[in-house]
Amino acid sequence: MSLTSIKSQANYTIGIVGLGLIGGCLALDLKRLGYPVYGVARRPATVTAALEQGVVTKAGCDLALMAQTDLVFVCTPMALIVPTVKKLADYLPESTVVTDVGSIKGEIVATATTLWPNFVGGHPMAGKAESGLDAAEAGLFRQRPYVVTPIETTMPAAVERVVAIATQLGSQVYTSTPKAHDRAVAAISHLPVMVSASLLHTCLSEPDAHVKTLAQQLASSGFCDTSRVGGGNPELGTMMAQFNRSALLQALQQYRHQLDTVIEFIEAERWDALEQTLSIAQQERPKYL
Amino acid sequence: MSLTSIKSQANYTIGIVGLGLIGGCLALDLKRLGYPVYGVARRPATVTAALEQGVVTKAGCDLALMAQTDLVFVCTPMALIVPTVKKLADYLPESTVVTDVGSIKGEIVATATTLWPNFVGGHPMAGKAESGLDAAEAGLFRQRPYVVTPIETTMPAAVERVVAIATQLGSQVYTSTPKAHDRAVAAISHLPVMVSASLLHTCLSEPDAHVKTLAQQLASSGFCDTSRVGGGNPELGTMMAQFNRSALLQALQQYRHQLDTVIEFIEAERWDALEQTLSIAQQERPKYL
Repeated sequence: MSLTSIKSQANYTIGIVGLGLIGGCLALDLKRLGYPVYGVARRPATVTAALEQGVVTKAGCDLALMAQTDLVFVCTPMALIVPTVKKLADYLPESTVVTDVGSIKGEIVATATTLWPNFVGGHPMAGKAESGLDAAEAGLFRQRPYVVTPIETTMPAAVERVVAIATQLGSQVYTSTPKAHDRAVAAISHLPVMVSASLLHTCLSEPDAHVKTLAQQLASSGFCDTSRVGGGNPELGTMMAQFNRSALLQALQQYRHQLDTVIEFIEAERWDALEQTLSIAQQERPKYL
Repeated sequence: MSLTSIKSQANYTIGIVGLGLIGGCLALDLKRLGYPVYGVARRPATVTAALEQGVVTKAGCDLALMAQTDLVFVCTPMALIVPTVKKLADYLPESTVVTDVGSIKGEIVATATTLWPNFVGGHPMAGKAESGLDAAEAGLFRQRPYVVTPIETTMPAAVERVVAIATQLGSQVYTSTPKAHDRAVAAISHLPVMVSASLLHTCLSEPDAHVKTLAQQLASSGFCDTSRVGGGNPELGTMMAQFNRSALLQALQQYRHQLDTVIEFIEAERWDALEQTLSIAQQERPKYL
């Protein structure tokens, strides 16, 4: 593939494999931006619905439809991203850029790039409680982070193509290595799930039934907020841990160290040290908002 | 004091020592309920403001004013509750019931009861981000928990007097031992602060500057919620740990055990066990909402 063989952005045809929430939202926005959008779904009913709802220009169950596209978004569940890229390789012209929307990038980018050199990892960080095509809405990615994760061998022109589209979606686009991305999301997204679930289990493990019930009666907005992500979708939380195991374990060990420091301060009645720790947390938190 | 010496509820005169947010809100609600409300504040300016705003019937800086009351709410900062009860003992008729609004009950109830046998521990669980009399508003305690914490020696009629008032405020009234109260609030209120602050410090301790910045850029509503109470008032968090040290340390050790279980599941790739843990958290969380 030569760089000059990449068509100008205006003429792109976009492919979407997987017409769930994210695939559906991407299709909606990109079709409104004027791109022809071709969609592939596993279930014929999804294909029919996508065509009826006007989410896509063309749709089918066969990946051969992707042969006519310039940029393919793989929007399948995480475990199917690499197998899908492998299958796509049989149909695509070598100039077609393939990107994905998986929330963990390390292994996916490494493996997918060996299968399709014109692969660029991506992670649009938006979502809804509901899933599926029916929950799709326009503008989901607007003002939300979209991380693009090239590696050393990724062609700059391919990165630019994905960045240009993410920018048109209204996203805040960041570029990062897959490893840095995975460490960052481990800290701010996957660690909180484990921290929060452990809090719930601490309350559930209270041996005194009266204290346990009283805690349930007295729990208020602070407990509600701190326990929210720990009470989320268990399949999703487990999948995050599976796909980001190494970075998450590193974050958990670091967290355990921080927790032990707090415990030590309280055991030793080092109240000034505890107050300083809480002051730093208070001062620095706005940087994460 | 004999039980018959306790006046009927309708004729109570109520005393409030400490006209900050909680004292001010109590005064407002009780005055509206038709009680004469006498307030004592340390600063003359607060006395003037309370009278001007019509929050109290009478007010002054001298605890002698409390000699005319039937039920006194001690609404000072935690560290001043016991010293205030000690001073009040010089002025009060022995039929007067004294209660407090401190958020930790064990030591306060034990010590205050030796100083004033007609003492009943209380904890109205309501608050606002702002503090002081100017932030006082009517109805703050409505539909909020109000825990009354008698001990073996507490006179039932004194407990009933506090329960009756809390009920009139519109609160959900619970009765508990001081120890059970302190364990419950350790789990649902003080532990979350330490858990949440440790999460913030884990992110702050990231050694790679790029990853640290990326985490700040990508942090979203999940991180915002999980880190909220950890980024709260450091003096308040430290005071909770000081006053509830034993129950909080117990909760922290139990939390550490739960966290270690999660870490072990991820290390051993026991995904079914992790998913079951997260499923239980998801199922049980609504009991705390």
